[in-house]
Amino acid sequence: MIYGKRITLSTKGFSDIKNITGEVKSIVSHSGIKNGLVSVFAIGSTASISTIEYEPALVEDMRQQLEEFIPASKHTRHSQTWGDDNGFSHIRATFMGPGICVPLSEGGLVLGTWQQIIVIDHDNRPRSREVFIQVMGE
Amino acid sequence: MIYGKRITLSTKGFSDIKNITGEVKSIVSHSGIKNGLVSVFAIGSTASISTIEYEPALVEDMRQQLEEFIPASKHTRHSQTWGDDNGFSHIRATFMGPGICVPLSEGGLVLGTWQQIIVIDHDNRPRSREVFIQVMGE
Amino acid sequence: MIYGKRITLSTKGFSDIKNITGEVKSIVSHSGIKNGLVSVFAIGSTASISTIEYEPALVEDMRQQLEEFIPASKHTRHSQTWGDDNGFSHIRATFMGPGICVPLSEGGLVLGTWQQIIVIDHDNRPRSREVFIQVMGE
Repeated sequence: MIYGKRITLSTKGFSDIKNITGEVKSIVSHSGIKNGLVSVFAIGSTASISTIEYEPALVEDMRQQLEEFIPASKHTRHSQTWGDDNGFSHIRATFMGPGICVPLSEGGLVLGTWQQIIVIDHDNRPRSREVFIQVMGE
Repeated sequence: MIYGKRITLSTKGFSDIKNITGEVKSIVSHSGIKNGLVSVFAIGSTASISTIEYEPALVEDMRQQLEEFIPASKHTRHSQTWGDDNGFSHIRATFMGPGICVPLSEGGLVLGTWQQIIVIDHDNRPRSREVFIQVMGE
Repeated sequence: MIYGKRITLSTKGFSDIKNITGEVKSIVSHSGIKNGLVSVFAIGSTASISTIEYEPALVEDMRQQLEEFIPASKHTRHSQTWGDDNGFSHIRATFMGPGICVPLSEGGLVLGTWQQIIVIDHDNRPRSREVFIQVMGE
């Protein structure tokens, strides 16, 4: 069995981090699939998916770390060529990767108690961000 | 067909790197599945899964690199707020991601000769770490 | 249904970035599978898979970023021990991870318009690089 759904989120950019665990659980529940894999994939080249303990202090630490690694002010050939000033967003996204797969077992996502699924929107402006959830199994 | 199993490892923390290729192969063998995907997923928000040439010198290089990127001494809001001093562990884990999928073909994991599957436990103490292996295919 | 194929690429090393979206699409098309997951996995311990907006300026930015993070000149125990001078390649590869899964929906890869699938060969020499594409679904 396969059940896929696209969700849309409002994001603020600059590595805005949103907890989408609830949305993923809801889609899994709606799919009726109990065991298998759940792929969570960010559509577009300026966002990433990962997991985190979603609490405000750590979310801010993670955003700061990304800013330290690859500053929004970083001079890039991409921004210079295209004038859209989001070269740093692309580099952050490619480095972290576009998606993850979470195991699904006996109807539940296999996650730790303090482990939430997040989308990080690295783009340099507020936008509507699409994430695809693919549930596959039985 | 789907076959999932949770394994438990003793880890030392501070990005302790353990080779779990043998455990994954054993679970795949036990599943009877010959072709498909094998998801290897770290349960919890302070560990990562990746691959490496598992030899002691490189394992030490990788640990040192993580320490250079995000030092264990790094001041974080998370540690300040919760007093558990493992903010760096979380940041390392979110950056590297919680899991990977390895293709399974004709009964064998599709890996290079010097490519092993590892769990990296970034936490700041020895602990018992759980990893979920989900084998899906036919 | 499961359909797997190994492709071979000529790479130049030092985080040479190749767009393999066309190859992946072609394999998906040949598989006849319309919905499911497509695993793209780099065989070996010195390459990574991710996505990027594949245009020359950004590709160069990404290569430069990797060089800034983990310079090819970096002294590593691995290179010292084995004399093959590619410790930096391994560290880059383990950090970024060996593969991704892309959802497949109604016959098409779920990718953004400017989002291409890439292999990054971090090794320190031109070589032949193998990537495994596993299509699973119905």
